[in-house]
Amino acid sequence: MATIDTALTRLLGIQHPILLAPMGSAAGGKLAAAVTHAGGLGMVGSGYASTTAIKQELGEAGNARVGIGFILWALDRNPKALDVALDAKPAAIMLSFGDPEPYTARIKAAGSRIICQVQTLEQARQAAGAGADIIIAQGRDAGGHSGMTRGTIGLVPAVVDAVGPSIPVVAAGGIADGRGLAAALSLGAAGVSMGTRFTATKESLWDQAMKEKAVASGGDQTAQTRVFDIVRGAAWPAIYPGRALRNDFFAQWHGKEEALAEQQKAVEASYVATGANDFAQRVVWAGESVDLVRDIPSARDVIERIVEEAASVLRGGAAMVRN
Amino acid sequence: MATIDTALTRLLGIQHPILLAPMGSAAGGKLAAAVTHAGGLGMVGSGYASTTAIKQELGEAGNARVGIGFILWALDRNPKALDVALDAKPAAIMLSFGDPEPYTARIKAAGSRIICQVQTLEQARQAAGAGADIIIAQGRDAGGHSGMTRGTIGLVPAVVDAVGPSIPVVAAGGIADGRGLAAALSLGAAGVSMGTRFTATKESLWDQAMKEKAVASGGDQTAQTRVFDIVRGAAWPAIYPGRALRNDFFAQWHGKEEALAEQQKAVEASYVATGANDFAQRVVWAGESVDLVRDIPSARDVIERIVEEAASVLRGGAAMVRN
Repeated sequence: MATIDTALTRLLGIQHPILLAPMGSAAGGKLAAAVTHAGGLGMVGSGYASTTAIKQELGEAGNARVGIGFILWALDRNPKALDVALDAKPAAIMLSFGDPEPYTARIKAAGSRIICQVQTLEQARQAAGAGADIIIAQGRDAGGHSGMTRGTIGLVPAVVDAVGPSIPVVAAGGIADGRGLAAALSLGAAGVSMGTRFTATKESLWDQAMKEKAVASGGDQTAQTRVFDIVRGAAWPAIYPGRALRNDFFAQWHGKEEALAEQQKAVEASYVATGANDFAQRVVWAGESVDLVRDIPSARDVIERIVEEAASVLRGGAAMVRN
Repeated sequence: MATIDTALTRLLGIQHPILLAPMGSAAGGKLAAAVTHAGGLGMVGSGYASTTAIKQELGEAGNARVGIGFILWALDRNPKALDVALDAKPAAIMLSFGDPEPYTARIKAAGSRIICQVQTLEQARQAAGAGADIIIAQGRDAGGHSGMTRGTIGLVPAVVDAVGPSIPVVAAGGIADGRGLAAALSLGAAGVSMGTRFTATKESLWDQAMKEKAVASGGDQTAQTRVFDIVRGAAWPAIYPGRALRNDFFAQWHGKEEALAEQQKAVEASYVATGANDFAQRVVWAGESVDLVRDIPSARDVIERIVEEAASVLRGGAAMVRN
């Protein structure tokens, strides 16, 4: 099959310029291993910097070469989790949602690549200054947590220009097919990081009903909100809401975040008492690209399909140009 | 120079797949004519469906073949403005921010092309059903007014899939250079509509200080807000905020829209008493692509640069593919 050669594939020594987003709820070691075995780079989540989660997911990944993602504000509370991660000699450490600077020297010394995920142009400049090997420019088009300020299509070329050619930039947010990969490369990115597309794969940790809910849903139904974090008592900073499917719980509480926080214990009890697949109440994280999620294939099928489609789009694009 | 051949260029009989967004504040007849003369399609704004504005801007456009843009909720209040527009035999009528259905038959009968600008996938389906010849999928990345639900990178491919190959889709929001045009084509669009990039051109109606403000500003500084509409007493529906540079006025009133509406007359008086170039108070509409606006060239230079860059990107994309 076709391959697409970029600064990202060369730097990470991978076949295809596709990273798995280290989603706590879906990107376990099994999915990460499947992405790596298919030629991308699998990333496992570390929960909220939980050494237990790291060990478990790395165990699930087996011998596959994977990376580990950290939520920086959580790592700040338990910085020793980074040591546990580095002991496993991961291909890369991804740092998101906070200041990466306190951690980059240790990661570099341990021989892992430093991937900083940023949500604004200013954060991209800081990440470059802090020693990032790779920068993921994540737009609010993304599923799950992201920033509110920037969208993918404008952020990516601005970051590419700001950090210069020595740091490969990866596009994240709103990308789920080969057209999106080709578009990201056109914007100057060297690859993509995908979450939503991988939530609905055979190897995803999500259960079948939730995967089918993603397949049945569209991007118009998604919104960025804090209510699903507040109800669970997750201490996400207000600047990082999560994109999820709008549902009854969203309708009841979105815009009433202070009231929800005041009643958190009581509301949480009734929230968790609902079935995990009561999607009128429970969160289904989904990016705007969920329109393009129409089946539940293996991670390998996703990657091969995307690369073949992107190759076709890239060839077709050149054919539109006259003289 | 290079040209890029798409379903949009063929349908409209233009050389380059670039439309001027019909921005009330910047896209006068002079700018629209310059875009048309450079091979794109210039669009003039009609204010809030003002026959005076239409006649004035068409006069400024001279003999250039241009289109005319309408804000649908304003046209609903003064539907006769469409007759004045159609009398001029415009190349196209663009309909945004409302239900196009009451107007499409008259436009079709008059021989103009119908361009519907949509902000959600649901609206795209409605526009296709109402008889749109072309659909602009506009993400909230855009400057000035847009929706809040969707970003460009996810909306465009979803709309392309939903409306099928017989209706060319144009991408709008966050695009200001050849990388953005190439990305839009990769997503399946047949061209782009650009506003922010054209606000800072020689032919734009903006004055020099405002153009220089755009050049000096970045996408991180922009936000969607209703405060600049509320203070001017403009009856925009709440679902269509405008993206502008954040400034002192924004900081004072954003999030306090009800209070602003209650004091509108008094605040408006002090707002308009500030100088037009007091950018701490006055609005500067800007999309996230303002990072990529670094000079004030002619509209022709913008178009030629973008097409040359897009051609180079499209050729380079094909070269990334192995076997």
